[in-house]
Amino acid sequence: MIDASLFAFDVHGVFITRILDDPEVLGGHAVLEALKRMGRKIALIASGSNWSTKEYMERMRALGYLVDYDEVWPAARVAAIHLRRIFGKAHVLVLGERGLAEEIEAHGHVVVEDWRDAEAVAVGHDRGITFDKVTKAVRAVHAGAYFLAVNKVRWYYMPGEGPIMSPGAIVAAIEYQTRREAVVVGKPSPIHFIEVLSHFGVMPQDAVMVGDDVEADMMPARSLGMKTVLINFEKRGDKQSWPRGLVDLVLNHVDELAKFIKG
Amino acid sequence: MIDASLFAFDVHGVFITRILDDPEVLGGHAVLEALKRMGRKIALIASGSNWSTKEYMERMRALGYLVDYDEVWPAARVAAIHLRRIFGKAHVLVLGERGLAEEIEAHGHVVVEDWRDAEAVAVGHDRGITFDKVTKAVRAVHAGAYFLAVNKVRWYYMPGEGPIMSPGAIVAAIEYQTRREAVVVGKPSPIHFIEVLSHFGVMPQDAVMVGDDVEADMMPARSLGMKTVLINFEKRGDKQSWPRGLVDLVLNHVDELAKFIKG
Repeated sequence: MIDASLFAFDVHGVFITRILDDPEVLGGHAVLEALKRMGRKIALIASGSNWSTKEYMERMRALGYLVDYDEVWPAARVAAIHLRRIFGKAHVLVLGERGLAEEIEAHGHVVVEDWRDAEAVAVGHDRGITFDKVTKAVRAVHAGAYFLAVNKVRWYYMPGEGPIMSPGAIVAAIEYQTRREAVVVGKPSPIHFIEVLSHFGVMPQDAVMVGDDVEADMMPARSLGMKTVLINFEKRGDKQSWPRGLVDLVLNHVDELAKFIKG
Repeated sequence: MIDASLFAFDVHGVFITRILDDPEVLGGHAVLEALKRMGRKIALIASGSNWSTKEYMERMRALGYLVDYDEVWPAARVAAIHLRRIFGKAHVLVLGERGLAEEIEAHGHVVVEDWRDAEAVAVGHDRGITFDKVTKAVRAVHAGAYFLAVNKVRWYYMPGEGPIMSPGAIVAAIEYQTRREAVVVGKPSPIHFIEVLSHFGVMPQDAVMVGDDVEADMMPARSLGMKTVLINFEKRGDKQSWPRGLVDLVLNHVDELAKFIKG
């Protein structure tokens, strides 16, 4: 049996396949319903930076998941909250797509075009990256702006298409040139989990992380003292291993979780 | 006194100021003339990847330097020769500007657009860098293509304009995503010096490197066993120091070198 007052779920690879644009639904409707009936708190964790919280919520609802705004935690949301924590309202140079800029603005920050106005630089996935954008970011970071990576995911892969330039690659370019290291907020950064726990007022030991990836989900959650449930889908291409004691429960499918929770 | 059969000069910061587009001439005409009169071999070394050898030669001539094609050694030239050494004729995906592609083609290679055709990826300074270009490079390198950096210069700076995205930043992005390390051919890589020595058939101990930068010029040349002359222009912003014995001769101006050479 495993129980907690907050259930945090990695979405991609647990509820749906990796890509949000056109995902395959894997499951999770039953466990979400069961947890809501039992009055547990829920957080959907995703390191992607393409979608604002609102857009992410709408996309999950379109796939039949009953989730509220409060329960949806893409890294873009954590980035915006993190900047509020440090700056109150910040002037932010965004290297990223529309969803990231919208999320930053939804939290009261100002997205700036001129690097001289930037108190912070926020870098996410950006299919429109250019020489001028990176140059602006280099200048702002060099001039002392806060350097935030929404995530630093190294390997981005589009099914049927192959690898595409990753947000981690953009971050690495700016880090190399400026000799400064970005503050990463998205999973597996502990900041992602800390902001979620803080929002719900839950202690780590009273929270559980449910994910499909040992390194990106289980390890950071356990470092903070959270409980851990690994969803070990057989359709994952790779076979994962992990140190004894890292994972509290291993399941083949997320909806099996319901029967391990005390009612 | 210092003598050698080959005199290699770093161009930028020694003969002319940093930027080739609109440089200030610092000197060097007198020493070049003296060396030619004495029958010494000459090589102009530059790590930049913007210009083909031919274009570079023409630009130096327009500034009054009497140099032949054989004497002009931008990193783009070394990149093309390096690829010949490994592949004979290579199919090359180029991330860089027109001059680099022209140089690659001038040495008989084929510049390809489709990453599947690329035996090698060559990365230089590229003000037209895009998401798609980096994605192509990531795919080619991931698929096993030879990964060549014309240089990996970290800090690119345009006078009056500030820093601009460096070629090193592009290389770092691809390295981060693919977990592969580029072969750097441009100075301070020893490959730059080795190809020049090899071309002229001169042993390192019979060659001298004349440059303005301790780390980028003196150190790699001395590692190979070359003699070293540091041009310590007072107009350099920073003050350099170096280990005892690294530099054979320090001069304030490159044209002073003439009087230290045996006739």
